[in-house]
Amino acid sequence: MVRSLCRMSLLLLLAASTLHAQAKMRSLAERLGHPAGTKLLILHGDDLGVAHSVDAASFDALEKGAISSASVMMPTPWITEVAAWAKAHPDADIGLHLTLTAEWDTYRWGSVASKGRVPSLLDSAGIFPNEVEPVAKRAKAAEVERELRAQVERALALGIKPTHLDSHMGTLFATPEMMAVYLRVARSYGLPVLALRGDPKAPPHASLRANEVALDTVIIAGPEIPRDQWKKFYLDAIANLKPGLTEIIVHLGHDDAELQAVMVDHPDYGAAWRQRDYDVVTSEEFKQALKDNGVVLVGWRDLQKAMRQP
Amino acid sequence: MVRSLCRMSLLLLLAASTLHAQAKMRSLAERLGHPAGTKLLILHGDDLGVAHSVDAASFDALEKGAISSASVMMPTPWITEVAAWAKAHPDADIGLHLTLTAEWDTYRWGSVASKGRVPSLLDSAGIFPNEVEPVAKRAKAAEVERELRAQVERALALGIKPTHLDSHMGTLFATPEMMAVYLRVARSYGLPVLALRGDPKAPPHASLRANEVALDTVIIAGPEIPRDQWKKFYLDAIANLKPGLTEIIVHLGHDDAELQAVMVDHPDYGAAWRQRDYDVVTSEEFKQALKDNGVVLVGWRDLQKAMRQP
Repeated sequence: MVRSLCRMSLLLLLAASTLHAQAKMRSLAERLGHPAGTKLLILHGDDLGVAHSVDAASFDALEKGAISSASVMMPTPWITEVAAWAKAHPDADIGLHLTLTAEWDTYRWGSVASKGRVPSLLDSAGIFPNEVEPVAKRAKAAEVERELRAQVERALALGIKPTHLDSHMGTLFATPEMMAVYLRVARSYGLPVLALRGDPKAPPHASLRANEVALDTVIIAGPEIPRDQWKKFYLDAIANLKPGLTEIIVHLGHDDAELQAVMVDHPDYGAAWRQRDYDVVTSEEFKQALKDNGVVLVGWRDLQKAMRQP
Repeated sequence: MVRSLCRMSLLLLLAASTLHAQAKMRSLAERLGHPAGTKLLILHGDDLGVAHSVDAASFDALEKGAISSASVMMPTPWITEVAAWAKAHPDADIGLHLTLTAEWDTYRWGSVASKGRVPSLLDSAGIFPNEVEPVAKRAKAAEVERELRAQVERALALGIKPTHLDSHMGTLFATPEMMAVYLRVARSYGLPVLALRGDPKAPPHASLRANEVALDTVIIAGPEIPRDQWKKFYLDAIANLKPGLTEIIVHLGHDDAELQAVMVDHPDYGAAWRQRDYDVVTSEEFKQALKDNGVVLVGWRDLQKAMRQP
């Protein structure tokens, strides 16, 4: 997820906030060895690979246990750094943030698949569109599948063993065809996905299977939150967590020269934003709030196990 | 040029230092409107595009007139930043640092051409080799040409109007076949190249044409220079400049978190090295030394004009 959420249809955000606990979900906690009403939380860092600044902040938060999961964007410049860290931290919960967009102005990327094999995904310079809409309009399903598989295969080739798949900027939720490709790729690799089961606003896409887990709620900070209310937003979210499985998506980074340059002119999901997220999730106050509210942090690897042993 | 110079054959370095003034060269100063014996100097920043840190330091040095030229690596992550800057600075002397290698450990890149069209240049993950030797051994000339043309075309598509071509890590000087491709591509775009005319150690490659300019001397800092002798190395170089055309290649950057991560574990041509280069070329002492020694800074655009109007 990135700044462009605010420009795009807000599909994921709206969809996620309207999700409700499913009957299935009530048993997930039990399948993971917790009482039925447990508040399970995936604290998830997005956008690994984009910049060293994002990687460094995310690795630090993962190592401290401040977040329980993260996902990496395979078309980005810093994936080898992520792969090296993942190899040195084999228990870390690292998924793939499947990517068909490149949203920053002066820092772009394109497909993992050979350009000539995915022309409907790229502009004439071989770069992904910066928004979801042109992808939804132009991308051919066969090329989307080719590119998603190339991203998974590149991760495997680099020694990353992904624990889950999700979708950068929610792009893959934009059309039923892309959603179907997303689920097909996930299933063929036996991976859980960030999924939107039960969302009344979403198009009538392929539904999840019985043994596949879905989130009850996804929480993500938006540009409407005042900067001085940042910690309060997250503390309130923790205080109001419901029983079931929630994912809070955070965007970690350091507000340094590199990240300011990557995200130049875009305060939403920009460098200072990511520093604020990092400061909150690594704070003692936030850690204490998780404890006080009886929240159990889980990762996608736990869900992967639950999928395999229903 | 980067750290790998010290690991590779040192071909360029040795070659360049043994170059002697050509009869042709004695008239270049005159063609540029200076007396025949003028010390012409291209102060050239390599490796734009690799990192924001490199771009920021190089843009700053170019804007201050501390360097007179630079070149950008089109397969790297930050080319759009370079393109935006180049558009805002149409008089800046920006060439293309043609690239067939990716030498850093945790930060890699591959071809601009579609992967499937240049398989002899890439490993199975679509990444360039980290040294010159595997390129010299495996690269097919037709694929080298395809990739070099793709790099030039990408630059043009992004609005960069290159003033010259040179070769990252001297890769294109490694075999007569690659040298021939390099010259062919340069000629087809009417661009001057960093060329090694008169080098007795070089293989018997295609020779330059009468209207093409070549350097008398290329100077580049090497790992043998003690850190505390950095400024002295450059001041001595300026004091000893000969009449004719010299290029001093510098590697500018800031010794910050991003560049330290790009160049992790490689002090040669690493982040601190690039900070030292930046500190020297932007110093008052260095500027004064240029003045005291009657050095005239020129760029490749001047040479381009000289080529067109012999």
